[in-house]
Amino acid sequence: MQIEYDGTDFSGWQFQPEARTVQGDIETVLEKLCNRRIAISGSGRTDAGVHALGQVAHADIRIDELERVKTGLPAMLPDDIAVTEVQEVDSSFHARFQAVSRLYRYRIEKFKHPLMNRYCHTFALERELHTADMQRAASLSLGKNDWMSMAKEGSGNSDWIVNVISADVMEDKSGWTFLIRANRFLRGMVRIWAGTLVSIGSGSAPPGIITELLETKNREKAGVSLPGKGLTLMEVKYN
Amino acid sequence: MQIEYDGTDFSGWQFQPEARTVQGDIETVLEKLCNRRIAISGSGRTDAGVHALGQVAHADIRIDELERVKTGLPAMLPDDIAVTEVQEVDSSFHARFQAVSRLYRYRIEKFKHPLMNRYCHTFALERELHTADMQRAASLSLGKNDWMSMAKEGSGNSDWIVNVISADVMEDKSGWTFLIRANRFLRGMVRIWAGTLVSIGSGSAPPGIITELLETKNREKAGVSLPGKGLTLMEVKYN
Repeated sequence: MQIEYDGTDFSGWQFQPEARTVQGDIETVLEKLCNRRIAISGSGRTDAGVHALGQVAHADIRIDELERVKTGLPAMLPDDIAVTEVQEVDSSFHARFQAVSRLYRYRIEKFKHPLMNRYCHTFALERELHTADMQRAASLSLGKNDWMSMAKEGSGNSDWIVNVISADVMEDKSGWTFLIRANRFLRGMVRIWAGTLVSIGSGSAPPGIITELLETKNREKAGVSLPGKGLTLMEVKYN
Repeated sequence: MQIEYDGTDFSGWQFQPEARTVQGDIETVLEKLCNRRIAISGSGRTDAGVHALGQVAHADIRIDELERVKTGLPAMLPDDIAVTEVQEVDSSFHARFQAVSRLYRYRIEKFKHPLMNRYCHTFALERELHTADMQRAASLSLGKNDWMSMAKEGSGNSDWIVNVISADVMEDKSGWTFLIRANRFLRGMVRIWAGTLVSIGSGSAPPGIITELLETKNREKAGVSLPGKGLTLMEVKYN
């Protein structure tokens, strides 16, 4: 299934017994439709406040339940989650393990815009960022590297190797969009990377700090993590 | 002052003692800044749930208060209101009486999109609308006419003459945008007009129903009023 959600009122993707989560809401509807508990597997977890336009998840259901799920699931979800497509896949399909890449967007607005406020980070005080420096830093992010220095601590990983396939910074009249595609993402990675780009754009660090972070694996030189609300999972690709 | 707001959590623009309103929130901040009650006048009222990207209001303040208001007002408002510009105007300026036109947008999405849900109307069931018929109906809306049949009843008006300067219907991949510019708007007018266009687009009424409504002033043939959340005040023009 293809899923869109406004992450504002969720404690993230992953099921938690005591909190509202996207996975939890979808599983609740599936249980109503099929009269049994059905677990879904997402392509990856998103943190609290993070949005999705192209999340993908799979579930093992019986063939006789498919029509009910196809019509019932999109209709019974709350306003802030939409299942935009349900399709039958091969039983070997796994939304997480078979994804070859994910694309994330981070959006920064120069000025406060109430109609976009939930979906972007806005500077408290007006700031100009140097776009060319951030673009240079984005290009230094490409390739296979150890991203430990830009992952959240204590995420229980033993392998921090990430292959960044594309990374772009675009400026428009009202702000900046950062786009990054990689084979996988570590916890907190895009938000810390975006915070590091902002440090670079503000002149607090040179573009080369990206290379240094990837080489030295030293978290202390990374930028601060930007708020989750500016981040959106745009697309998950499969072969 | 130029104002943007997300109308979702407001009982409309106009001050009400017991409800949260945009005017009320701005006046509360002005009172904190100037230590006295200052009333603001908007270019027009917007209903509960209706948004604005280009609302305009004026207030009479002392010249020594101007700097404090210019910096304090944008900074002290809640997330869902932004004052994007404060400028000194001639004392004869009146945001409502001197406005020569207002532009409203009504947005309909074909499918549920959680990240746009607050700012559009979405059909509960998928529907196709016939765009050319709606465009024809929009063109029949132009000019000076009596809009009593498409205004909310009991709005206490005695004059329903409105000069519609432009009216357009645009279709894109994900839905329809209706744009209407007029010298003034009657209460509920855009939402009833949009509802009438949807009746026409669905084939329940011919485009000529617009002319009939404007000529006969018969409310019974108008479409239903669409939800406020799809409506945004885009711009107010002055000479």
